[in-house]
Amino acid sequence: MGDDYSNVSIAPCKYEYLDHTADVQLHAWGDSLKEAFEQCGMAMFGYMTELDSVEIEDVHEIEATGDDLEGLLYHFLDELLFLFSCEPNIICKKVEIVTFDVDGAEMKIKCKCYGEEFLIGKHPQGTEVKAITYSAMQIIDDADKHEVYVIIDI
Amino acid sequence: MGDDYSNVSIAPCKYEYLDHTADVQLHAWGDSLKEAFEQCGMAMFGYMTELDSVEIEDVHEIEATGDDLEGLLYHFLDELLFLFSCEPNIICKKVEIVTFDVDGAEMKIKCKCYGEEFLIGKHPQGTEVKAITYSAMQIIDDADKHEVYVIIDI
Repeated sequence: MGDDYSNVSIAPCKYEYLDHTADVQLHAWGDSLKEAFEQCGMAMFGYMTELDSVEIEDVHEIEATGDDLEGLLYHFLDELLFLFSCEPNIICKKVEIVTFDVDGAEMKIKCKCYGEEFLIGKHPQGTEVKAITYSAMQIIDDADKHEVYVIIDI
Repeated sequence: MGDDYSNVSIAPCKYEYLDHTADVQLHAWGDSLKEAFEQCGMAMFGYMTELDSVEIEDVHEIEATGDDLEGLLYHFLDELLFLFSCEPNIICKKVEIVTFDVDGAEMKIKCKCYGEEFLIGKHPQGTEVKAITYSAMQIIDDADKHEVYVIIDI
């Protein structure tokens, strides 16, 4: 027979858990930098819910600008996040960049966002994306390699 | 009638999610620094599972040393984490420090750990604790205030 620990007193709880921080890195690629940006946008929405559950009911257009590629990618993702964060909360299944102007002093994207309003019950709740970050951002745009790495706060 | 988007093509998936990092801050307090340390240990186990589901079937003794209070707290929690990480994986409901020697050059803790082997099915799986950190560690030991803050990687 083992020892009897039934009389061991249990202390009252004098602790708490303070906010945790977390992040995840998105890695997206494509046959062009434009496609890598589009894929990165879809990766972000895919982290928020299962994209298979999303239907295309509507299309929204966003614009983003930047002084360099990093700024452009940041603002592009931030605009997509804004689409989701404001009423009606739009979740996108397809992200189609129709203008990708990265040659001038001010770089610019215009993008069509296909999706629908996020509905609890219809769309599985993934992880909340709190913010885009510049942390360890990488944009590779070689002749045969078009990739982006972005860390998002969750 | 709304527009018809049934012909919108969906791009293949060209993205992936790379490992995320996360942490949570434990905040524990007590009527003495010793009690705050004990509570901090229980806070860590409480993050791994629901302590209400844990029964006391066994007692294990651990020891930890440190050159200063921060080192002592770090090694104390690390020893508790080690109890859980090695076979048999012990989860503790009660952590009782029986020696709390913080006056000498080498500080020392001896601690009784009451709990049982972690069993999937019996114990709800909380969040895996990967490591203790020194990041932003705070130890307050005033006349009327005994508190610790520890960030753990999860």
